[in-house]
Amino acid sequence: MIPTPYLLFLGDAHDQLAAKVAQGIRDWRPEFALGQYRMEGCNADMRLPDMTLPEAHAKGARTMVIGVANRGGVISQKWKDVLHTALEQGFDLASGLHNLLRDEPDLVETARRHGRALHDVRVPSVAYPIANGRKRSGRRLLAVGTDCSCGKMYTTLAMDAEMRKRGRKSDFRATGQTGILITGDGVPLDAVIADFMAGAVEYLTPDNDDDHWDMIEGQGSLFHVSYSGVTLALIHGGQPDALVVCHEPTRRHMRGLPHYGLPTLEQVRDMALELAKVANPACRVVGYSINTQHMGEDEAGQYLADTERRLGLPATDPFRYGAGRLCDALEGI
Amino acid sequence: MIPTPYLLFLGDAHDQLAAKVAQGIRDWRPEFALGQYRMEGCNADMRLPDMTLPEAHAKGARTMVIGVANRGGVISQKWKDVLHTALEQGFDLASGLHNLLRDEPDLVETARRHGRALHDVRVPSVAYPIANGRKRSGRRLLAVGTDCSCGKMYTTLAMDAEMRKRGRKSDFRATGQTGILITGDGVPLDAVIADFMAGAVEYLTPDNDDDHWDMIEGQGSLFHVSYSGVTLALIHGGQPDALVVCHEPTRRHMRGLPHYGLPTLEQVRDMALELAKVANPACRVVGYSINTQHMGEDEAGQYLADTERRLGLPATDPFRYGAGRLCDALEGI
Repeated sequence: MIPTPYLLFLGDAHDQLAAKVAQGIRDWRPEFALGQYRMEGCNADMRLPDMTLPEAHAKGARTMVIGVANRGGVISQKWKDVLHTALEQGFDLASGLHNLLRDEPDLVETARRHGRALHDVRVPSVAYPIANGRKRSGRRLLAVGTDCSCGKMYTTLAMDAEMRKRGRKSDFRATGQTGILITGDGVPLDAVIADFMAGAVEYLTPDNDDDHWDMIEGQGSLFHVSYSGVTLALIHGGQPDALVVCHEPTRRHMRGLPHYGLPTLEQVRDMALELAKVANPACRVVGYSINTQHMGEDEAGQYLADTERRLGLPATDPFRYGAGRLCDALEGI
Repeated sequence: MIPTPYLLFLGDAHDQLAAKVAQGIRDWRPEFALGQYRMEGCNADMRLPDMTLPEAHAKGARTMVIGVANRGGVISQKWKDVLHTALEQGFDLASGLHNLLRDEPDLVETARRHGRALHDVRVPSVAYPIANGRKRSGRRLLAVGTDCSCGKMYTTLAMDAEMRKRGRKSDFRATGQTGILITGDGVPLDAVIADFMAGAVEYLTPDNDDDHWDMIEGQGSLFHVSYSGVTLALIHGGQPDALVVCHEPTRRHMRGLPHYGLPTLEQVRDMALELAKVANPACRVVGYSINTQHMGEDEAGQYLADTERRLGLPATDPFRYGAGRLCDALEGI
């Protein structure tokens, strides 16, 4: 686990979108987001206090999280100057970059000298077991989607937040880099060896109280030919009691696959549910999470109403309208 | 690729079953199986000429394949004495053991000194791409199953052999350790990083002549919760034109999962076909391969006849009765 709270490193972010990891932490774990560190030329702003390294450390920050994408596939010397200083001043570093911190010998040496840790959340740090399929106690919800990057992480984060607000026991379970940095823990499922994928999900969502919900972040899609195996490992390793189907209605083709159209919500519902019942015969679909960010207010409202009427279950955009109705659907399960 | 032909190392095999890798090579690539090397106490016999290392080398063997499982999770000193000598005398070594040859510093050093290669087929040697889903030329058949270890490898090897006998263009495409050692090439899919599974299958089955068939070895089962993700990556990366559904009728529960019953052939047919159509809308199920090794002649015959009548497609045991009827079903596709 990554020590919290964090100082969010925004570097020389080109724009707000480049800092989406920092944005996710700020949106979903504001209690971890003590302050931000911006370099000259930074065009992102999380509306957090700008802090120097000593200020952040004095206020209790223990990890500097790289909350921004790097450019050109390298960790620049300008960044490194800051990263070295942070290690020297007592911070761990955490990163979800493709370029691993541990592959930079100078950072490794500085971390070693000062007794600090480098957390590369893109790669697993655990030898996961092979899944045993044993029924676990506690409740689990999994987000599945028509496509990649259509709102599965935000849906489960929003449902987790709503459940906590209601005083219910809930944990968001991260399965991707951004989610792991947001919560400080999780499994980077796309980097796990094939044989251990479902076992990694079992490890991530262990036995728990009967009234506890794991909100499991989904990955990929059963209908995305590049990543569908990861999705199925989540369905079978997660043995969910409840599925939420996520969708972004304005997308014209599967992400990265221009020759593949999107499946319908009905197709994803039926396929995911039948496969989920292999691991948990009691599984059911409880609602639809629609990412309406590219739709106006009227259009979004109409689409949600039509979807709900057609499919007979709550359909909402939890980021825009809250996750209340999706969480209501969990009552009595 | 592993240099052929092979000298098959049977070591001090406890019994014939312990040498099933050697048996597979001997059954399916007899032209690669030049001879066998047995140590004192060996209880396995491939009915191949027993050869010393110099004899085998003089006859053209270029790789000594470890065709037997090791005991106690270690590579014994008695084995090592032979392996070192083989390297010194000009053989590469090939192994599918969990204990990697490359993790034995003394073997690495001897191989280096003599310019020989250590082929650990349990782990990938290639950086596979992410799948792009592009439609490839040529034809592909994939074996799917109700469970693990129910005859998928033997089915595709038998169909490949039958197609070649008929003068048709065909390649068996290995996706597991035994299959890779049998043919000298393939992808150890269960050891591939999750994100690259489907891409590894695309890499394994590239564009080919329009009248060429890839016979793709299946892995796991869509209904086996430990490994189903690997199966789906094969279905989507392989974009098969034809599926054969494999089954072992005497099994009482899923392999390694005592609490999971087996799916029906109909369930596997419908689920696999619907998922396969995502990558290849023209895909169809062409027949059923039934592993009748634990059934008497009458029982097997009755089961096959019943299955064929019920499902309306050829049902046979290709190992017992030949793969002719399954290959007939490919005509006209």
